[in-house]
Amino acid sequence: MRSHYRAAVMPGPNQPIEVREFRAPELQPGGVVLHTILSEVCGTDVHLHHGKLSGVPYPIIPGHVSVGQIAGMRGTITDVDGLPFHEGDVVGFMDVHESCGSCHYCIVAKETTRCPSRKVYGITYPAEHGLLGGWSEAIWLKPGVKLLRLPKGLDAETYCGGGCGLNTAMHATDRAEIRLGDSVVVLGVGPVGQSIVTFATLSGANQVIAIGAPDDRLAFAKRMGATKTLSLGQPREERIQLVKDWTGGRGADVVIEAAGPPQAVTDALDLVRDGGRVVVCGQYTDNGDIGLNPHWQINRKHVEIRGSWGSDFSHFHRSIAVMGRHHERFPWREMITARYDLDHLDEALDAVARRTVVKAAVDPGIVAHS
Amino acid sequence: MRSHYRAAVMPGPNQPIEVREFRAPELQPGGVVLHTILSEVCGTDVHLHHGKLSGVPYPIIPGHVSVGQIAGMRGTITDVDGLPFHEGDVVGFMDVHESCGSCHYCIVAKETTRCPSRKVYGITYPAEHGLLGGWSEAIWLKPGVKLLRLPKGLDAETYCGGGCGLNTAMHATDRAEIRLGDSVVVLGVGPVGQSIVTFATLSGANQVIAIGAPDDRLAFAKRMGATKTLSLGQPREERIQLVKDWTGGRGADVVIEAAGPPQAVTDALDLVRDGGRVVVCGQYTDNGDIGLNPHWQINRKHVEIRGSWGSDFSHFHRSIAVMGRHHERFPWREMITARYDLDHLDEALDAVARRTVVKAAVDPGIVAHS
Amino acid sequence: MRSHYRAAVMPGPNQPIEVREFRAPELQPGGVVLHTILSEVCGTDVHLHHGKLSGVPYPIIPGHVSVGQIAGMRGTITDVDGLPFHEGDVVGFMDVHESCGSCHYCIVAKETTRCPSRKVYGITYPAEHGLLGGWSEAIWLKPGVKLLRLPKGLDAETYCGGGCGLNTAMHATDRAEIRLGDSVVVLGVGPVGQSIVTFATLSGANQVIAIGAPDDRLAFAKRMGATKTLSLGQPREERIQLVKDWTGGRGADVVIEAAGPPQAVTDALDLVRDGGRVVVCGQYTDNGDIGLNPHWQINRKHVEIRGSWGSDFSHFHRSIAVMGRHHERFPWREMITARYDLDHLDEALDAVARRTVVKAAVDPGIVAHS
Amino acid sequence: MRSHYRAAVMPGPNQPIEVREFRAPELQPGGVVLHTILSEVCGTDVHLHHGKLSGVPYPIIPGHVSVGQIAGMRGTITDVDGLPFHEGDVVGFMDVHESCGSCHYCIVAKETTRCPSRKVYGITYPAEHGLLGGWSEAIWLKPGVKLLRLPKGLDAETYCGGGCGLNTAMHATDRAEIRLGDSVVVLGVGPVGQSIVTFATLSGANQVIAIGAPDDRLAFAKRMGATKTLSLGQPREERIQLVKDWTGGRGADVVIEAAGPPQAVTDALDLVRDGGRVVVCGQYTDNGDIGLNPHWQINRKHVEIRGSWGSDFSHFHRSIAVMGRHHERFPWREMITARYDLDHLDEALDAVARRTVVKAAVDPGIVAHS
Repeated sequence: MRSHYRAAVMPGPNQPIEVREFRAPELQPGGVVLHTILSEVCGTDVHLHHGKLSGVPYPIIPGHVSVGQIAGMRGTITDVDGLPFHEGDVVGFMDVHESCGSCHYCIVAKETTRCPSRKVYGITYPAEHGLLGGWSEAIWLKPGVKLLRLPKGLDAETYCGGGCGLNTAMHATDRAEIRLGDSVVVLGVGPVGQSIVTFATLSGANQVIAIGAPDDRLAFAKRMGATKTLSLGQPREERIQLVKDWTGGRGADVVIEAAGPPQAVTDALDLVRDGGRVVVCGQYTDNGDIGLNPHWQINRKHVEIRGSWGSDFSHFHRSIAVMGRHHERFPWREMITARYDLDHLDEALDAVARRTVVKAAVDPGIVAHS
Repeated sequence: MRSHYRAAVMPGPNQPIEVREFRAPELQPGGVVLHTILSEVCGTDVHLHHGKLSGVPYPIIPGHVSVGQIAGMRGTITDVDGLPFHEGDVVGFMDVHESCGSCHYCIVAKETTRCPSRKVYGITYPAEHGLLGGWSEAIWLKPGVKLLRLPKGLDAETYCGGGCGLNTAMHATDRAEIRLGDSVVVLGVGPVGQSIVTFATLSGANQVIAIGAPDDRLAFAKRMGATKTLSLGQPREERIQLVKDWTGGRGADVVIEAAGPPQAVTDALDLVRDGGRVVVCGQYTDNGDIGLNPHWQINRKHVEIRGSWGSDFSHFHRSIAVMGRHHERFPWREMITARYDLDHLDEALDAVARRTVVKAAVDPGIVAHS
Repeated sequence: MRSHYRAAVMPGPNQPIEVREFRAPELQPGGVVLHTILSEVCGTDVHLHHGKLSGVPYPIIPGHVSVGQIAGMRGTITDVDGLPFHEGDVVGFMDVHESCGSCHYCIVAKETTRCPSRKVYGITYPAEHGLLGGWSEAIWLKPGVKLLRLPKGLDAETYCGGGCGLNTAMHATDRAEIRLGDSVVVLGVGPVGQSIVTFATLSGANQVIAIGAPDDRLAFAKRMGATKTLSLGQPREERIQLVKDWTGGRGADVVIEAAGPPQAVTDALDLVRDGGRVVVCGQYTDNGDIGLNPHWQINRKHVEIRGSWGSDFSHFHRSIAVMGRHHERFPWREMITARYDLDHLDEALDAVARRTVVKAAVDPGIVAHS
Repeated sequence: MRSHYRAAVMPGPNQPIEVREFRAPELQPGGVVLHTILSEVCGTDVHLHHGKLSGVPYPIIPGHVSVGQIAGMRGTITDVDGLPFHEGDVVGFMDVHESCGSCHYCIVAKETTRCPSRKVYGITYPAEHGLLGGWSEAIWLKPGVKLLRLPKGLDAETYCGGGCGLNTAMHATDRAEIRLGDSVVVLGVGPVGQSIVTFATLSGANQVIAIGAPDDRLAFAKRMGATKTLSLGQPREERIQLVKDWTGGRGADVVIEAAGPPQAVTDALDLVRDGGRVVVCGQYTDNGDIGLNPHWQINRKHVEIRGSWGSDFSHFHRSIAVMGRHHERFPWREMITARYDLDHLDEALDAVARRTVVKAAVDPGIVAHS
């Protein structure tokens, strides 16, 4: 551990990123400090930079999902199997933490992703609270933040290729309850959609139809497991007709929305078969209203629609385990199409916003790696 | 059995009802003829009279849910427990029948209420096909139509008080998966809503809040089990606030929409707590679109929305069993607030349309009863 | 708060209870001290006294479920709705606590009742650790122990009448997934069985058949909601035949075992219908093996068998809410058939062991009440 | 179609198979006649030959799962998507049929595999009723027997390699509710176990551990997807310890029993983790009782045990669809290790009984094929 670390700070909406030096804070009992191997720049960081999330305590150090090497810890820290971590271990951590464990959502309704006390690394902490984001040489993990050892053979690049979208994708796929042989449509081919394509494939869907744009992402979706793809360039009615043609005239058993535009939710309702299931996980920010017809699209359709918000440790744990087994079959690693150091993160944000890269990685350069 | 029977015919949308005489058709093997004790006039009949349902083969003999006395049958007919029916037995029957048992919805998806071959007594048969509706002295039950003996102590009036709404209510309550102690909001206090209020109460909801109009129906909902009621006369925001006040600030665990106006679906989404469940069963006809915000009302809310279409024999069987046990505690019988003979059914339709009666019964007068 | 409190200590298996005086320990931040209104003597205490549970750190202060008045606390303590507790409030608390929130069972499998770190008031603490059981004038609640305000109108006697069995019963009833109209058999008419009878009734079961002994408890089960009862005095084959007669020849949709003797599990499998569900919650200690036939009783029967271990806060919260609503309809209060002060707890244990009382209450006499 | 067909008849338990000639019966409306391409000899046929199933109307024509070419039909026959079949089509059919659609199991409990009216080709029909088994040049399909077109690229050999075990495996896998990332143990490496290994793999299990014998079947299980195998030759305690070592010390999330010996059910309970799920589908005949401890193995374990009996059309339809997609990845085709004509079926039965072949196919030689 060093006495000082450099970190990239987002001073406020639409302001340039600044690199500042922070004094290393003291470790609390149960606390851990990581030297950052990689962090990521994802769509949420673009939303943060455009000021689209409310209640963000700017200036902040962004970077919610990261991988690092344990540089120090205070006390014995163990994983869920009770095995202790050691200095030098390469780990990921659950960015969402401090679900209170005491409120109605946590312990009666058991919908912990709706706990009002949740905190998120890289989003909900002001920079003055210390190194609580991944765009930094080091990350201070508070007591209780859950660490997870990368499975053997899984490297930092692959892990960050899945990144925060992986947990969201696992939660959404769980909510979708795909059965062996189902037909599944995935709306959206950004990082979340790509991992859903893979998880739907691994869940035993017979057909996984990815719908989105641009074409190179659709081509990538095929490598992630999609059996067919449809471009948003094609007229909407044609897309719906083709999905029906491929599903006995009925529509898909399951549709998972991971697209973003509100209209995608309406599309989902027109693409799913009667009695099917729609999962909505792409409406992370408020992009406006949609119109729908409750007679034709909900009641008569006998459909089930499920929102899926955030994720918890079980999704993180299981998604990394699944990635650990299948990372040679599905090219998560290649989702990182550009890498930036701390001094070029405005460029990274710009590239993600313009979709010229699928996902950008942040390498602060403190840990030597391939 | 007689050689001829009188029946009320709806010649077409917005035309007066006519009483005609029909020659008794021959019984097929497995067929049954009932002498009608009571049939009902419900909201669907008003929709039929206003031409709001598509594909109806006018002229028709309306009356989908009815109770009668077995006047003849061909062969041995048994109930689900294998016990044979006899002439003189008082029975109800499942108006929806001829799910094909061979299509994808019936035997793969197992969503039989979406089988395209389904037929419904009183709705899908032209009058020229014979006595296939309940507004008639006699009803011809085709082979395979499921009969159900009324439980001991359950009379025809009580049965018809629940009527067709009872099956819809049971299906919707099943879809709601109410847990012991839940708070439940029921939107709509027509016949379907009233039975849902009772079923939610019997399912162990701690609070059952009925929202609707007019006031006498809200008062009736209290007798059906509602712990609280709210009038549509009260401003929407006030209603939402009160439900939140009664549910720890969160909203209800479950909201069941049985109201009709499309806006009720939006209301449901604002009344349910995060991670809760909304069931939509009141959008039986197309009354237009609604606007909703998929970020706030679906995704972030982590809500589950389930359409509930029609019903199958299991709902019929279980709802009659439940009514058989609880008809003294809940006043289903009093939902019939007017009774008409075959010659006054225009008046009956008018009264139901204007909501001056909750439910109208049709008594063709062929069976002597109390 | 006083400087010293009296408490009843169980020095070891089969040794007489002793009353000792303890110095009041200091409160930790987040800690609470209760003056005990009532605690209970239940079957588990008899097991403890007979040395049938392994790993118990005798001497202990027994008494896991208790109700008390807040006599002191350190810091602000809130309920699940965020409302603060105050001195003088009458509260219950969740005896099971310290699920770690970090192990595989807590956060991946989400089976928190199997967390190996769980602690239980009145069972897992040695007396030298302080006032951590209810057979005491005061109870020290560690930080994080969950409090619950008694609902308006619910008095201490009624609450203790349900007692620890209430949570077990709620968990078992949840696992049973009773549907409106189901037939349910409850095996066992001790405190747990009695509350299951009520919860099954409140869940909408059409029939609730209680099987057990002695006759006065069967009579009590009728007051708790049982529609029929069968005595263990009756030959086993007769009991099975009667249940089949009452369920269309098939057996019950759901059977919940809360009896204790291992043979009850075999009975359950013979009483449930094909494709039905059996919940096992009465095998709290090891009373030996059973024989069963996996072809006839599991595979061909297509049955579902669910063990139900312990309970969590959601069961506690919901069972108290349900009791708060229904305590006038069901006589939980009368389950307490004897009351003892700290100096006569050997008598209490003896009475519970010999089943001359259903449930014994402990009143240390520090709080004046009716 | 011909006027006469040859078929192999099992005259009674432990009697040699005889080939007899049958006059072709007349087709009923809705009936179909197939020229048999392949049928199978499976463990059930050995049970039939040893007289281990009760109520079998010997003499019978065995062969429940078969594939054939449509040689004649009366009327229009369509698949679940409404597409008509034509003469010459290569099809499989659902051997289990005539679920009554009218009894409590069919339409209230919706457990159709427990319908008492079910008939099974090759098992429940006496030979004098006609060509109602697959060990025959032709098979008479009664009206209502469900046909299924083989997916493009799926040949008769592969289809029969999966055979009747495929439906059983799909049903059991459905009941297992495997989640992405789960660890699954499959007990038994006969035809049913092998397909469960594949279906568990396709459902996203991270580990699939097959336990059974002999070694060549364990090796085959690896090709069907098993990540690890354990031999019954290894001591029981060692096997249990190894599974715990591979699952964080807890045991598997899911165990599926497809082994046969009753003791396998006890093994399953010792191999599953607390709060896990056990599915029992291998106890097709009565092989005696087991002993188990309901405290340690059910209640405290908080386990879920599900029997899984038979299968319905949805399992057939989905398993063929899944096989159609994955038959190049998993070697179902190679499960047929021997082929017999009608005149050598005693040898086939003997080979299956002695396990010298995994599965034997019957080729009556009427249809020319590769």
